[in-house]
Amino acid sequence: MGGGGVADLVARARDGQPRAVARLITLVENEAPELREVMARLAPHTGHAYVVGLTGAPGVGKSTTTSALISAFRRAGDRVGVLAVDPSSPFSGGALLGDRVRMVEHVSDPGVYIRSMATRGHLGGLAWAAPQAVRVLDAAGCDVVLVETVGVGQSEVDIAGQADTTAVLVAPGMGDGVQAAKAGILEVGDVFVVNKADRDGADATVRELNHMLGLGAPRGPGDWRPPVVKAVAARGEGVDEVVAALGRHRGWLTDRGELGARRTRRAAREIEAIAVTALRRRMAGVADGRRLAALAERVAEGGTDPYAAADELLAGLTGGGSAAGRGR
Amino acid sequence: MGGGGVADLVARARDGQPRAVARLITLVENEAPELREVMARLAPHTGHAYVVGLTGAPGVGKSTTTSALISAFRRAGDRVGVLAVDPSSPFSGGALLGDRVRMVEHVSDPGVYIRSMATRGHLGGLAWAAPQAVRVLDAAGCDVVLVETVGVGQSEVDIAGQADTTAVLVAPGMGDGVQAAKAGILEVGDVFVVNKADRDGADATVRELNHMLGLGAPRGPGDWRPPVVKAVAARGEGVDEVVAALGRHRGWLTDRGELGARRTRRAAREIEAIAVTALRRRMAGVADGRRLAALAERVAEGGTDPYAAADELLAGLTGGGSAAGRGR
Repeated sequence: MGGGGVADLVARARDGQPRAVARLITLVENEAPELREVMARLAPHTGHAYVVGLTGAPGVGKSTTTSALISAFRRAGDRVGVLAVDPSSPFSGGALLGDRVRMVEHVSDPGVYIRSMATRGHLGGLAWAAPQAVRVLDAAGCDVVLVETVGVGQSEVDIAGQADTTAVLVAPGMGDGVQAAKAGILEVGDVFVVNKADRDGADATVRELNHMLGLGAPRGPGDWRPPVVKAVAARGEGVDEVVAALGRHRGWLTDRGELGARRTRRAAREIEAIAVTALRRRMAGVADGRRLAALAERVAEGGTDPYAAADELLAGLTGGGSAAGRGR
Repeated sequence: MGGGGVADLVARARDGQPRAVARLITLVENEAPELREVMARLAPHTGHAYVVGLTGAPGVGKSTTTSALISAFRRAGDRVGVLAVDPSSPFSGGALLGDRVRMVEHVSDPGVYIRSMATRGHLGGLAWAAPQAVRVLDAAGCDVVLVETVGVGQSEVDIAGQADTTAVLVAPGMGDGVQAAKAGILEVGDVFVVNKADRDGADATVRELNHMLGLGAPRGPGDWRPPVVKAVAARGEGVDEVVAALGRHRGWLTDRGELGARRTRRAAREIEAIAVTALRRRMAGVADGRRLAALAERVAEGGTDPYAAADELLAGLTGGGSAAGRGR
């Protein structure tokens, strides 16, 4: 694809043409060389979208909740982008299942763009790909971008946690509060949703979450206290309350100047992921990868340790000395 | 801790003293500066352990299977180390729950060392920490090291997939074959275990897995064909068959010279993770982090794009030019 092709593609994506948006996100999935130009052209048009992360264990109803939130934001007139990086989500199963049953009502809506993303095995991984895909949806004119990730897995929780507002979903009877804490998703939640709240134990789950959230660091008077909202997303119950809670958090972010700070932190992670991926590519390329292979053989045989090997690898990369430094 | 302290600690860990092993893995969890010396001292004593990865979705019975495998390896006289990096595993819940009920029979066995590991939020993450913890268990004289990770999440699946032999667990009635494929764990499996095989649908799951495995790339006559084994780990049924399948894979690895190749690949990933973490630390340290913060602000405001920012960051790091290179 030549420069003219990229310029045209970006112009059509900014015009909201779904196929152009799809093509740009495919470039992200493929770690395509054109991305550098794509991102340069998109940059002036980013920063409009409100980015909401949704995460939770498999089975808590993330996809149903995402679908209900799409409807709610659409009623408010927002253009909505959805990025599903949850491998267990029906949104993500396209290639294998085509199971998007719940999304039928949104598929024909030109104000909604839904995209699942697969990155497994790519060099940069989720930390590299997801923010760039969000950037595409943002520049394409989405007012809200929902990022759905499974709340199990380090990379996946990190991605959801880098939204403007992160909603953590739990369901009654899954030992959920404790499970959430163990999976590290309590820390990233700005809003908690106890979904399937018509089930037994919903109130106990709300109490448990409130208790665990109260155990955190003492908060100042203006600090954000994550609310716990009950919902039955499959029936649309509680969805307005969830949207209201997201809105309150967004207002708090704006009032406190925290929105800009969060976005700067997100950009820092994005820059870092691109830089690290470039460095990994360079490391793999040192002496056509033979240096890393030779070092790895020595480590596998016990002839040296991985820190000393990393030093040698980095010395070849940067011309520096004890590059891996100390453990810390 | 001084140099003498580290030497003493390593000597006691090599002597199989559980508290010394525990302390070394805590150093890994804490990304402690002493690790460089620890790993240098351990290196000559590594490469003995047979490393088995166990992964699968929450609820398939990973912990029960791990426990049953411990018993089987113990009956064969092996010293066994277990590293549980599964946040949903009872082995990993120590700090919150102390729920190790199933492990009671093993806790008092000096031939078994069980350790859960938490790495969330650490700079290097799982890719950095897990192989170093395995290295500790290996050098401490374990004949077998079982690495249990949840089969959801990019980092977690990658960790299990870097074992000598990787066992993927599924359970009937979880839409498991397709789910496994979506989560990317089909590719990493050397042995498949259909656990809870007394449930309805076990045979269908076996057929489905065999079918999906058959869809892979055509195999040569000497290539490994992952077997699918039925088990009811909670009752010990099928566990000997699982151990036998692991043993056949181990034999195949050895006969083909593939064991060394796998270990070299694992060492390469380990070296790379250490090098990348060192580089990330350096990037965060460029101009005390002010350069990354300033670049991130410009990206968040749309004043530049993340690739151009990564270039600038890397130029400061390595003195080079267009460091992030092309997208690819």
